[in-house]
Amino acid sequence: MINFPSKINIQNTEKRITGYVHRTPILTSTLINKIVSSNLFFKCENFQKAGAFKFRGAVNTVLSLNRNELKSGVATHSSGNHAAALALAAKIRNAKAYIVMPRTAPVIKIKAVKSYGAEIIFCEPTLTAREKTLESIVKKTGAAFVHPYNDLRVIAGQATSAKELLEETPTLDYVIAPVGGGGLLSGTALSSNYFSKETKIIGAEPKGADDAFRSFSEGIIIPSVNPRTIADGLLTSLGDKTFPIIKKYVSEIITVEENSIIQAMLMIWERMKIIVEPSSAVPLASVLENRNKFADKNIGIILSGGNVDLENLPWD
Amino acid sequence: MINFPSKINIQNTEKRITGYVHRTPILTSTLINKIVSSNLFFKCENFQKAGAFKFRGAVNTVLSLNRNELKSGVATHSSGNHAAALALAAKIRNAKAYIVMPRTAPVIKIKAVKSYGAEIIFCEPTLTAREKTLESIVKKTGAAFVHPYNDLRVIAGQATSAKELLEETPTLDYVIAPVGGGGLLSGTALSSNYFSKETKIIGAEPKGADDAFRSFSEGIIIPSVNPRTIADGLLTSLGDKTFPIIKKYVSEIITVEENSIIQAMLMIWERMKIIVEPSSAVPLASVLENRNKFADKNIGIILSGGNVDLENLPWD
Repeated sequence: MINFPSKINIQNTEKRITGYVHRTPILTSTLINKIVSSNLFFKCENFQKAGAFKFRGAVNTVLSLNRNELKSGVATHSSGNHAAALALAAKIRNAKAYIVMPRTAPVIKIKAVKSYGAEIIFCEPTLTAREKTLESIVKKTGAAFVHPYNDLRVIAGQATSAKELLEETPTLDYVIAPVGGGGLLSGTALSSNYFSKETKIIGAEPKGADDAFRSFSEGIIIPSVNPRTIADGLLTSLGDKTFPIIKKYVSEIITVEENSIIQAMLMIWERMKIIVEPSSAVPLASVLENRNKFADKNIGIILSGGNVDLENLPWD
Repeated sequence: MINFPSKINIQNTEKRITGYVHRTPILTSTLINKIVSSNLFFKCENFQKAGAFKFRGAVNTVLSLNRNELKSGVATHSSGNHAAALALAAKIRNAKAYIVMPRTAPVIKIKAVKSYGAEIIFCEPTLTAREKTLESIVKKTGAAFVHPYNDLRVIAGQATSAKELLEETPTLDYVIAPVGGGGLLSGTALSSNYFSKETKIIGAEPKGADDAFRSFSEGIIIPSVNPRTIADGLLTSLGDKTFPIIKKYVSEIITVEENSIIQAMLMIWERMKIIVEPSSAVPLASVLENRNKFADKNIGIILSGGNVDLENLPWD
């Protein structure tokens, strides 16, 4: 029997992190609505602290730890948004953060993590090297490992984004979230189940990294092998805590082409004048590829983050 | 005796255009505030319809015309934001819009004007060619010429942005607006005079297009000659309607280096995750270059627009 975060758990999570996280705005675009013939409500986690939804889960976890648990700091391995999110969350409680990063991580991400005062430990860019390095750091320092997604406190934190979205919009037919490790998607599905049962939850995934689609179809976790996509936040595999929630509460997973992702990303930049990273554009790409299905529907779209290397854009 | 738009005039303008324009959000950034040691309030006209503040003045003018005045349409010459703004404003009243554009105008701007249903007349990329072509169009069609800035209805329209800003923020020590032809700056200065006398208004201008600075210093309009700046919205000269307002109600004009403009633009993109065009970044550049002057002050910054060629960014 798997223990999902409960309704009360998510409500308490929201209370715990209020004041630490931004209640991000929900934007609409008449122009994009006209293009797709739907009513889209964009939940802007690109405006979240540290630039992505990841901060919700990271700060919830760090705030859940007591002084004693926190005294040796926290640790994780990540080359992406979770790294900066955990570094900032730790800083808020004056705790140390140890972040294992592949030595090939983008300079901009390394700078962000450093700017929050975390200690970076570089390793070779392989999963084995990352896990081994993290293990030795945890052993040496006694820091608490905070997983980027496969952790019920992290999932409960990510759930608060959809909770806010569902509270502030007319009844949504769908909410679409991108899926990588499944932290955001599972949290979104839980919030819908507890706070807006009539809303269907869809995961959107690049075809070049379709392990969640295949896992969902087969009913067992199929790990991501050699994924290839511009959506660098969606390369990871589902976890044994996120997958059961997705299996139970998500209605489908839609995969999309790379050029749809780039087209959707450019559309958001050009029409809405906001910066989102490729992973954020995957849900809109799924609407662009399935216009009939989504015509005239009210659809929530979670824009997961806005951390993108501005000197290396996909349309250059 | 020059007739400035009155307080009642600006209040009526606001009533006239409400529902047609977006009441744009005011954003703040803890990170940028920390960098500059000031409290900045960014008025986001990059989210305005047609992507820039220009729509306020254009729609006010078009809504001020009666059916008879409008029956032959409206016309202007512009390669920039005023072109799209007037095209959209005309469309709202089912009026024809004739837009004279230099044949070298960016494809993205031409596309925007076309998408609003305006008729484009191309000409050689010189001011003489633009004016002569416009003149012949006006003669032939009887369309009403709507000047991009040197028009009291346009100035009153642009004034509504600062009015909203001043109403929604704590008392501001300064509001900084970019200055090209002076429509936005003169409107901003009028709104401050009528609605927040204690706020000082500053114009920010690229050093490579410093005709407003020189005009302000000399007390007479000195036309812009061969301006060179990345801030393509700020190339024009002051007009005989905008300059007297600026002379009377603006406290100073600050000029900035090109690299400060690029630095400020990148800072807004990276930290705030919103897209602004180079002209919008000039006020923040003036804060970056004068940190002592602005330390600990409450400062309104008008982000004038967000129309930028995403395939040709200044840091590429």
